[in-house]
Amino acid sequence: VTNGDIDHIAGLLTLRESQCFTLFSTGEIAELLHRNRIFDALNRDQVARRPVLLKQAFELVPNLVAELYPVPGKVPLFMEEGELETDLQGEQTVGVRLSSGDAVAHYIPGCAALTDELRGHLDGAGMVLFDGTVWQNNEMQAQGVGEKTGERMGHMAISGQEGTIAAFGGIDIERKVFVHMNNTNPVLDPSTEERRIAEAAGWTISEDGMELTL
Amino acid sequence: VTNGDIDHIAGLLTLRESQCFTLFSTGEIAELLHRNRIFDALNRDQVARRPVLLKQAFELVPNLVAELYPVPGKVPLFMEEGELETDLQGEQTVGVRLSSGDAVAHYIPGCAALTDELRGHLDGAGMVLFDGTVWQNNEMQAQGVGEKTGERMGHMAISGQEGTIAAFGGIDIERKVFVHMNNTNPVLDPSTEERRIAEAAGWTISEDGMELTL
Repeated sequence: VTNGDIDHIAGLLTLRESQCFTLFSTGEIAELLHRNRIFDALNRDQVARRPVLLKQAFELVPNLVAELYPVPGKVPLFMEEGELETDLQGEQTVGVRLSSGDAVAHYIPGCAALTDELRGHLDGAGMVLFDGTVWQNNEMQAQGVGEKTGERMGHMAISGQEGTIAAFGGIDIERKVFVHMNNTNPVLDPSTEERRIAEAAGWTISEDGMELTL
Repeated sequence: VTNGDIDHIAGLLTLRESQCFTLFSTGEIAELLHRNRIFDALNRDQVARRPVLLKQAFELVPNLVAELYPVPGKVPLFMEEGELETDLQGEQTVGVRLSSGDAVAHYIPGCAALTDELRGHLDGAGMVLFDGTVWQNNEMQAQGVGEKTGERMGHMAISGQEGTIAAFGGIDIERKVFVHMNNTNPVLDPSTEERRIAEAAGWTISEDGMELTL
């Protein structure tokens, strides 16, 4: 679990009671889950909780090593209090570096900004799965379905001079894949100009059931 | 919301943020939702929370009156503490009486026992939607998918001398419908003997998208 917001943790309730798995997260997200009694529905005899440290590699499954690292983001919406910072770097929003031998992939479903440090970290990867929430910062307003901007939600927009496609220019990555698209994002529709632009820029738009091989 | 357990409340998280509705529940369930911060994702400007008193009719929508009443049940699994009672009667598990003019329907998705009081309350109704979780008390064990009995979960079994079909004998109800079936319940399969028995006893097995007219 790379984030404590509802789109990342509510699915745990669907896995409740009788499915065995190990739940890896940062200490902060582990604490959030621990303090919320609804997650007691995950039977601790079947679901081991493993808080891990940032930037410390660990074996996720045999022959697959993972490492969590901070990316700019914010605390979960339902935990917001007082003045909001949307580009915090800590244990609340993380990327995952996955490696098996020389093969390296990164999974970053939420990211508020591509810092120089993050650019350097991604350089040379075989694959990056990256936050593709919105095409434009204000698309939810433009479509009349919500008032929040991508920025307000802690997400970069794909398009524009400061957008994700532009920000990834010059980073050496074999395969780039957008994940975590909001239902307002026009790249979801294969017939749109935005989809064509994203693909022409070397990005794949992920879809349900997609399998990726590194 | 007639119950505070996860199968009744987790769906609220899918309705989060931008859908307007009014959430009616008992005070106890309202308190459980209020105390759990994950439900702060339901924006209070869009989702009005209306705790209601047991046995006090209220207008659910224009021309549709509702009334909540206690049925035997238990506290939510994730709130269990100490010795467990599975047939409490209070604000934790309720039925709903719905009426529009002379037409009366009852919705009771969880019920641990059909008390004489409840039998009297249902008598004469046009429709009852009732807890059909399990066919046999131990079917989850028998199918190797879980250790809990229906009784442990606060549910009557459909079959058997003490079961729901038998218990409804002699109550005057025009249409009886099973809801809330567990995926282990053989009545879900139209080809089973159990389905045939339930239908022969006057019960309809509900399904996704079913529309009922009273």
